[in-house]
Amino acid sequence: MSAQVLSGKTMSESLRLEIASRVTALKERGLTPGLAVILVGNDPASEIYVRNKGNGCTEVGMYSRTINMPAETTQEELEAAIEELNADSAIHGILVQLPLPKHLDEQAALAKILPEKDVDGFHLINAGHMLTGTEGVVACTPRGALHMIKSTGVNLSGKEAVVIGRSNIVGKPMAMLLLKENCTVAMCHSRTQNLAEHTRRADILVAAVGKAGFVTADMVKPGAIVIDVGINRVDGKVKGDVDYDAVKEVAGWITPVPGGVGKMTITMLLMNTVEAAERMLK
Amino acid sequence: MSAQVLSGKTMSESLRLEIASRVTALKERGLTPGLAVILVGNDPASEIYVRNKGNGCTEVGMYSRTINMPAETTQEELEAAIEELNADSAIHGILVQLPLPKHLDEQAALAKILPEKDVDGFHLINAGHMLTGTEGVVACTPRGALHMIKSTGVNLSGKEAVVIGRSNIVGKPMAMLLLKENCTVAMCHSRTQNLAEHTRRADILVAAVGKAGFVTADMVKPGAIVIDVGINRVDGKVKGDVDYDAVKEVAGWITPVPGGVGKMTITMLLMNTVEAAERMLK
Repeated sequence: MSAQVLSGKTMSESLRLEIASRVTALKERGLTPGLAVILVGNDPASEIYVRNKGNGCTEVGMYSRTINMPAETTQEELEAAIEELNADSAIHGILVQLPLPKHLDEQAALAKILPEKDVDGFHLINAGHMLTGTEGVVACTPRGALHMIKSTGVNLSGKEAVVIGRSNIVGKPMAMLLLKENCTVAMCHSRTQNLAEHTRRADILVAAVGKAGFVTADMVKPGAIVIDVGINRVDGKVKGDVDYDAVKEVAGWITPVPGGVGKMTITMLLMNTVEAAERMLK
Repeated sequence: MSAQVLSGKTMSESLRLEIASRVTALKERGLTPGLAVILVGNDPASEIYVRNKGNGCTEVGMYSRTINMPAETTQEELEAAIEELNADSAIHGILVQLPLPKHLDEQAALAKILPEKDVDGFHLINAGHMLTGTEGVVACTPRGALHMIKSTGVNLSGKEAVVIGRSNIVGKPMAMLLLKENCTVAMCHSRTQNLAEHTRRADILVAAVGKAGFVTADMVKPGAIVIDVGINRVDGKVKGDVDYDAVKEVAGWITPVPGGVGKMTITMLLMNTVEAAERMLK
């Protein structure tokens, strides 16, 4: 039997309707949620991402502002721009588009963002909230992935979750979110021995590896929830980390690429921004 | 064949000699490392811990100060005391002895400590460093446990590590430290199904459960490194989470209780304090 497809597109559409109605409610109370994106230099891929973020804001009725800074921007200038947005009451979410040009210090820049306006969830304070399971801003991609996992209705408590990949923006926060849902969580990565033995035990399998088709059908437990975070460009096409056609025949649920987790990321950015605005009203 | 015993007492003695020599080197450069411990109320167990910390400082030549505050101390008074220590150049490490009386907000108090003086490693910024694997202050107990694991000389890369218990001060940071050592790490806890299946795969097994004798011999892989973080009082005796006598016959290495990880905790507090002082000189 073929897996149920978890459509990021469909879920995203319904979440954006919810976000739009929360934006309307905030506007009725005199507050328009605002997102500011700082883009340094003119990397074409980054420009597309930033444009999509702006379009997302418009779609749900939020205010958005893009601050374009030249590639030769200094650390001081970048941090001054962040400080200005921290102090700006029209802005509830601040995002510095990564990667920054090599001469700039990303960590130092991110540390300048007020944690409550850090809608990417990359500030160390928010990483600390993630580790300790306390309330903070959750990074967009793992938040979106968790939403998709929960949409299956499966009771996660006591389930075996395996996360492949240990990045700070996906793998590690994903593991912490699943732990908070009372899953038993295994963190696997490039040094893991006998990876398939781990993945075959997984009721929930999250792949965030960055290699097209890395997770094959023999690595998947029948009936598992398979979440594919990979976005790999192969011969001009976007491919996930999961060998979709084959795994679909084994898994219970699966996310497609494109149209899966990727679709959720900007939606969760909008969600984080509306929540930041709501917190400001409290 | 019986396991090699990893003695926290022996390791601690040798580490304290190293710390003492680093203290001497700092004093020669005009800086005496100083630790301040804030004790609110008069819980007898806390009073013993605080005294042991003070004695530890004296042993390695550090300056120590205990600030005794009455049980009815307000949040404002506690935070004012912390701020004063933050500003005090004679103090390089600040520790608020937990638990605090119930009317006080622990998280808010810990958040006031300067992250670089947070020698317990409990500040959210340091939890963030732990999650992201960046340089920060590592909580004393997991740091001590990792030191014991490394003392075996076993190459940790690719090894299976299983941590039982997911507290913010032991289980979760321990998992992150082992992940950084390139272990495959499984985080198990009270909701884990078939726990023994997980633990029997562990090359490195860390028990931080809080139940005397919880880990039995049949749960341990022959030759494993078994680290017992438990400190349970049973009939007036201190017992670990591991059924020591039986597990000793299966494991490759084992830590005793008492005289194991517990002995390392204050030593790592002293280490964190001397390192904080060294950073200040830079």
